[in-house]
Amino acid sequence: MALIPRNQDFSAWYNELIDKAWLAQNSAVRGCMVIKPYGFAIRENMRDALDQAFKDTGHRNAYFPLFIPKSFFTKEAKHVEGFATESAIVTHYRLKKNDESGEIEVDPDAKLEEELIVRPTSETIIWNTYKDRIQSYRDLPILVNQRANVVRREMRTRAFLRTAEFLWQEWHTAHATADEAMTEAKKMREVYARFQTNILAVQWVMGEKSESERFAGAENTYTIERMMQDGKALQSCTSHYLGQNFGKAFDVQFTNKDNTLEYAYATSRGLSTRALGGMIMSHSDDAWLILPPMIAPVHIQIIPIYKKDEDLQAITDRIQPLVDQLSTHTLSVSDTTQTTDTQRKKRTDLWLRRDRDIVVNIDTDEHKSMGRKMNQYELEWVPLTIVVGARDMEKWHIVIKNRLADEKVFVSYTPEDAASLAQTLADDLRSFQHQLLHSNITLRQDNTVTADTREEFTAAIEGSKFVLAHRDGTMETEELIKQETKATIRCIPDTTQHPDYSGEAWHCIKTWQPSTQRVLFAKAY
Amino acid sequence: MALIPRNQDFSAWYNELIDKAWLAQNSAVRGCMVIKPYGFAIRENMRDALDQAFKDTGHRNAYFPLFIPKSFFTKEAKHVEGFATESAIVTHYRLKKNDESGEIEVDPDAKLEEELIVRPTSETIIWNTYKDRIQSYRDLPILVNQRANVVRREMRTRAFLRTAEFLWQEWHTAHATADEAMTEAKKMREVYARFQTNILAVQWVMGEKSESERFAGAENTYTIERMMQDGKALQSCTSHYLGQNFGKAFDVQFTNKDNTLEYAYATSRGLSTRALGGMIMSHSDDAWLILPPMIAPVHIQIIPIYKKDEDLQAITDRIQPLVDQLSTHTLSVSDTTQTTDTQRKKRTDLWLRRDRDIVVNIDTDEHKSMGRKMNQYELEWVPLTIVVGARDMEKWHIVIKNRLADEKVFVSYTPEDAASLAQTLADDLRSFQHQLLHSNITLRQDNTVTADTREEFTAAIEGSKFVLAHRDGTMETEELIKQETKATIRCIPDTTQHPDYSGEAWHCIKTWQPSTQRVLFAKAY
Repeated sequence: MALIPRNQDFSAWYNELIDKAWLAQNSAVRGCMVIKPYGFAIRENMRDALDQAFKDTGHRNAYFPLFIPKSFFTKEAKHVEGFATESAIVTHYRLKKNDESGEIEVDPDAKLEEELIVRPTSETIIWNTYKDRIQSYRDLPILVNQRANVVRREMRTRAFLRTAEFLWQEWHTAHATADEAMTEAKKMREVYARFQTNILAVQWVMGEKSESERFAGAENTYTIERMMQDGKALQSCTSHYLGQNFGKAFDVQFTNKDNTLEYAYATSRGLSTRALGGMIMSHSDDAWLILPPMIAPVHIQIIPIYKKDEDLQAITDRIQPLVDQLSTHTLSVSDTTQTTDTQRKKRTDLWLRRDRDIVVNIDTDEHKSMGRKMNQYELEWVPLTIVVGARDMEKWHIVIKNRLADEKVFVSYTPEDAASLAQTLADDLRSFQHQLLHSNITLRQDNTVTADTREEFTAAIEGSKFVLAHRDGTMETEELIKQETKATIRCIPDTTQHPDYSGEAWHCIKTWQPSTQRVLFAKAY
Repeated sequence: MALIPRNQDFSAWYNELIDKAWLAQNSAVRGCMVIKPYGFAIRENMRDALDQAFKDTGHRNAYFPLFIPKSFFTKEAKHVEGFATESAIVTHYRLKKNDESGEIEVDPDAKLEEELIVRPTSETIIWNTYKDRIQSYRDLPILVNQRANVVRREMRTRAFLRTAEFLWQEWHTAHATADEAMTEAKKMREVYARFQTNILAVQWVMGEKSESERFAGAENTYTIERMMQDGKALQSCTSHYLGQNFGKAFDVQFTNKDNTLEYAYATSRGLSTRALGGMIMSHSDDAWLILPPMIAPVHIQIIPIYKKDEDLQAITDRIQPLVDQLSTHTLSVSDTTQTTDTQRKKRTDLWLRRDRDIVVNIDTDEHKSMGRKMNQYELEWVPLTIVVGARDMEKWHIVIKNRLADEKVFVSYTPEDAASLAQTLADDLRSFQHQLLHSNITLRQDNTVTADTREEFTAAIEGSKFVLAHRDGTMETEELIKQETKATIRCIPDTTQHPDYSGEAWHCIKTWQPSTQRVLFAKAY
């Protein structure tokens, strides 16, 4: 299909892609989207991969209430300040029919004693339950993950990237020392980073947020920033060190190893459906949605062409050896630093392993025409489509539409060829995963520049680059730069991950005050 | 542990069990529970099994908004009547600080134009999106499933069984004919039934609801009713034929095969965390939580006893062959009516297949004492616990605590024994799954009686039985019986599933009017 070209109107391109690839649609509720089956299938694969990484690093899933009593919400001053203006508030619990007009209306007699906030994030409701659970340092750490829907009122929404209701996982841990909590916050950001690299095939810049961009209630926010194809940044997940702020707000004290009472230390972090939007925006082109095989819902779609049931049986019998051979292959991610169970207990490792079966579907739906089927798989960007007709089978030919190589080939096929054909197709899928990551790395490398003067800086930002530049570190200067150029500090890069991003000591591009480290500026979603 | 005995106070027994087995706890939000990690792990296994069954029967997951505009909610008259009194209503979108008191309060200027109802069920918001999707009979059927949290205000709540917020899956389909929709509603109830039998190891009575017990907006409600250990019934899932009610309310018309416009036919159904509560209530005894192996989070917990790291390495090296052998076994469910892919396309089959790996954990947490570990696995009812000490290894002995056989045995073990030991343990798990189902079938059989007179009926209900009895079919009589005995019609049994439940023609036990079929009465949760 032809979409509005990216270089013409990137935003319109994205919206059209979401619509035409059947990923999501707007709903009648302002700012809330419907995630359609194909979009949801992609999300499920992302969720499963991440969920396994959580469990592998010792975290456990749980579920906490959707509603937060107003009084909890207000216990942490900065937290409520950050979220008060974008909340959905439940005030009543009953509808009734108006006796005069016959209309259904909110029953004024059914007012809640205390208003409930639909969770925009769950720190407060979760820390309220920790009070009972945490008595001693032996009860720590608590490593809990929740998959949930959250609601934040948003003025300008866009499918997956920014919606009033969104799906995410939020991770809330409690620790006995500040050190352990900070280590957790940083290490788990690395799990996210590996997820993005290995599963989503996208590259990132890792760092920490400047004070003005921190999560409301956090003492430090670690982030992963990603470059979209238009050069704008997308904050792809954040991991927060919350210090004792929530421990104090909810009076969670424990007896430490020295037998004295202390408030527990907290971290939290989350990754949302936004990462899905970012992934879509990263790989797709002017014609199609493009998906990394590690999260594509279907890898190989087989479409038999037949009229009679016995023809279908003949086709499936003939193609079964190929399906069987494909089932012996997996798409795998495993870091080179494999660990043993003995090492795992130390939680020093952060590996993300993931094996995915190659998903093969046979479409025998009689209600849909061949043209309709091909169209659907084209829009959904199924990497490999194999068309097999009863007539072809006599000629021992099948047609493979290979989206990875962008070609359509006629292949001579007998059941004896099944093993080698399966190997070729599996290799195609594997190498495509690497190819996507490579392109994404190149995109970022080619579009990240340094700027040492205000003129260089402005030009680079206007050129839609990631800009490494010096600043004086004050919130005032940051705000001025934002007002003038729309660029914000995406992060203070982690120098162990990005040793060449730091640079020599120099001057703030705005105030010419001295500065010791470059930070990453960009316009952002 | 010792719980309050079931025959002394069944309800208190259940609450204590939920608490002591670390499954759930009350939250600060009225009627909302926290699902703790162990309870959530059980739920995840249930969800995964059911999700596979959905996908195997051609249904696809999607996600719709949490909020329903009030105007949608009121479009189907019976639907709003059924849910209006138990809803949570969002009226405002901002909090602000009161300038005088300094308190955080709802900002009266931030009132929504139209109130939003937190979904108690999603028929209306989903059918609103079907209008655009359904033009022709070729667009049908639409088979969509959603996993979501829903909210219904409840006066008396109990963990898992009845909570204000609960997690469920809801399944919403659209069809071109009434016949197809009714067939879907009934067939998918069978998927639920097989899930309950094969995965949860519980038995049921299948039937349809009497008019007064139908879902608000349904033309027919199909149900599965289960007997708890106290003889009370638990409605374990319902499947609704909604006719054209929602098609008309949301103006979803399509061109049928005869090229005329018609309203689409709907079904919906759901299974919630309630099924988890019912399962817990069905198998556990006066001492412990008891779980069917098909959904137990962990099957075999290995606890090494060691002081030095090299001891741990020696233990894990020695036990690894057993772990490897266990990984060659699965716990499997497969109906005898296996189908081929060719048959599957017809959707005539409803099979539920499920293979679970045997889950083996090695607990090397150094912070927890041996006693604390044993206590935890006892409360969580891990079926098999294997304790291996470095000293034991010299003697080639391990200790197996077998909860299935309620015994603790010292076993001589060398790596050469791994295969046969793994086989024995896997067989133990498999036969226990069957044993639990068998007990549950016996419970229901032994406690289901017939009653042909009012006296027999009253005595049987007071004796906490499932009672098969005649009634005249009027809502008035049903209501009178309910007022006098607290018994309700749980279902009109499906005579193909329960041919012996129907009985000869006889008289209503209350009014002595003629009746052609016995129905199932019981007190219910």
